[in-house]
Amino acid sequence: MTSELIISLDAMGGDHAPDIVIEGASIARERMPNLRFVIYGDETKIVPLLTRFPNLKSCCEVFHTDKVISADEKPSQALRRGRDSSMGKSIQAVKDGKANAAVLAGNTGAQMALAKFILRTMPGIDRPALASIIPTSRGESIMLDLGANVECDENNLVQFAIMGAAFARTVLGVSKPTVAILNVGVEGLKGSNAIQEADRMLREANIPMDYKGFTEGHGLGSGEVDVVVTDGFTGNIALKTAEGTAKMIANLLKRSLNESLVSKLGALFASSSLLALKNHLDPNNHNGAVFMGLNGLVIKSHGGASASGFASAIGVAYDMAENDLAGKITRDLTNFNSTVIDPEVEEADNEAKVIEMNIKEQK
Amino acid sequence: MTSELIISLDAMGGDHAPDIVIEGASIARERMPNLRFVIYGDETKIVPLLTRFPNLKSCCEVFHTDKVISADEKPSQALRRGRDSSMGKSIQAVKDGKANAAVLAGNTGAQMALAKFILRTMPGIDRPALASIIPTSRGESIMLDLGANVECDENNLVQFAIMGAAFARTVLGVSKPTVAILNVGVEGLKGSNAIQEADRMLREANIPMDYKGFTEGHGLGSGEVDVVVTDGFTGNIALKTAEGTAKMIANLLKRSLNESLVSKLGALFASSSLLALKNHLDPNNHNGAVFMGLNGLVIKSHGGASASGFASAIGVAYDMAENDLAGKITRDLTNFNSTVIDPEVEEADNEAKVIEMNIKEQK
Repeated sequence: MTSELIISLDAMGGDHAPDIVIEGASIARERMPNLRFVIYGDETKIVPLLTRFPNLKSCCEVFHTDKVISADEKPSQALRRGRDSSMGKSIQAVKDGKANAAVLAGNTGAQMALAKFILRTMPGIDRPALASIIPTSRGESIMLDLGANVECDENNLVQFAIMGAAFARTVLGVSKPTVAILNVGVEGLKGSNAIQEADRMLREANIPMDYKGFTEGHGLGSGEVDVVVTDGFTGNIALKTAEGTAKMIANLLKRSLNESLVSKLGALFASSSLLALKNHLDPNNHNGAVFMGLNGLVIKSHGGASASGFASAIGVAYDMAENDLAGKITRDLTNFNSTVIDPEVEEADNEAKVIEMNIKEQK
Repeated sequence: MTSELIISLDAMGGDHAPDIVIEGASIARERMPNLRFVIYGDETKIVPLLTRFPNLKSCCEVFHTDKVISADEKPSQALRRGRDSSMGKSIQAVKDGKANAAVLAGNTGAQMALAKFILRTMPGIDRPALASIIPTSRGESIMLDLGANVECDENNLVQFAIMGAAFARTVLGVSKPTVAILNVGVEGLKGSNAIQEADRMLREANIPMDYKGFTEGHGLGSGEVDVVVTDGFTGNIALKTAEGTAKMIANLLKRSLNESLVSKLGALFASSSLLALKNHLDPNNHNGAVFMGLNGLVIKSHGGASASGFASAIGVAYDMAENDLAGKITRDLTNFNSTVIDPEVEEADNEAKVIEMNIKEQK
């Protein structure tokens, strides 16, 4: 365990900021006593809150910012005027080496834009992806991309597989994770050209993963593989469909169990089992999606997460920082690129450069 | 109610054929006494089975075929050698007016290819789509396409919306169904160009539906709208993800309730409520996906459906035939085309023609 790990927080992000952020930090600190925090936002709101959580007093620094990125701000607006906001500053802290990772709730598009702009994409990665832990019958799996890239080519999918495998090795603790691409069938000829080509490239690659080919939608719930790779459109729909289905069943179950006195009694007897299941499926307990492929760790919390959920996201940041996720990805990419595709690994921060140029032009 | 309704069956399709098919027909006949059947397949297997279901004796005719399409046969193979198979013949019966609809289990790709080839696409429809009823918190919704078309343009999506609305009016019994396109956000600027353009076209269209714009993955489970429109890749993944999630929760619930004596007792008291929920979510009770947009009704059953599930698929065929689904679609398409896009409605069976040409060339 390292002596100290510093997380930067945007105190102003999410539906219940700053309360949930500060309370979440306090819960996380109870769990991980070597954590410290640098907190950005409106100090007139943050400082009074801190008095309610005395365990944070000795391990956090608050930096005042006037600007806050609102939930409906467009990524382009956030880039133009958001770099000295609480969100921008908390990402900048990672860039400047003041924090090992940033944890942010709120406006996902703005987070993505600012994180890409400030931290830049890692060498060998064309586009960052959003990855998260999902609950399965077997335990937990990783899925990516969850919405950062609506359209993806074969290179993107291959890079997602490499990053997802590094995530699984770091957070799930498996040394050679099983990986599959989400598709409409498991036979070789189904799906788009990008999927076909990515499948071929991964079969030939020499990286620490056990590549399994394709998995179908059913495979998400059953936990068929450790890492499910897909484009951001499909990943976003699949994740939300799974969450929505779980919610539907919970509602129907509740309604059903309230129908008669006998069923209510049954629910009472079964309550501890039902609670354990509820906890396994609660998105708060799997909170913390990672923007993979940046030169620095940024973890996104659900905007509506509870304090305990926000603490889970801090936990993901902690695991990632403690176990050198970035180092794993870099090594795997180097191996992959030296054995399979173009031997020259380019500095792939082109997209951030384009954004930078656009901003300069608009000035 | 019409005096008589004839359904053609491929007795040889699905994992447990012909047993499940014949038993399913018997169950359906109990529910709908004006049904008759024309049954295609190996009569040495079918005729002995019929003795076990005396209610079918007076209302079915069996036609022997030697050929059967196997589960792993490719669509192109099915087209070349499958037109006198039990699958081909049961579709041909619809074309020849010997049956009001065909119900088939087994090889989906082969079904789609043969159905398109034999029945052709309706005027005004570029590509048929696979549509099905899905269970929601609110009751039931329709989703399409579920996998017939991996990539879709804006015209396909608009046509899917029209066909889905006609399906909802026929089977769900709503006069002006709510319709939305599945997307990664509800704001106007998210998603692909095809989605953006289809959204614009549907906002301007004059058809009996209440177009709501976009819905996200969460909206499937909550039943936000009556009809969810999407491309076949996303639809297939979303449907299977929802089914997989339901299965995962059922497994976890079962495991959870078996953990202690108290929880087992609870499960016992709650058993009738749990059973009702299980029934609502059981894919067998929503069995029967429709190949929409063909000049004739073809309903696909899950290959692994139970006899009762196969009877549900026959029930869908019955509703569709009884309530003139095809007529509704044709009227809506005519209205849509005359008010919004190109006034000339083309005979859009181009794809089937291409297949036909390919086959001729290969001869």
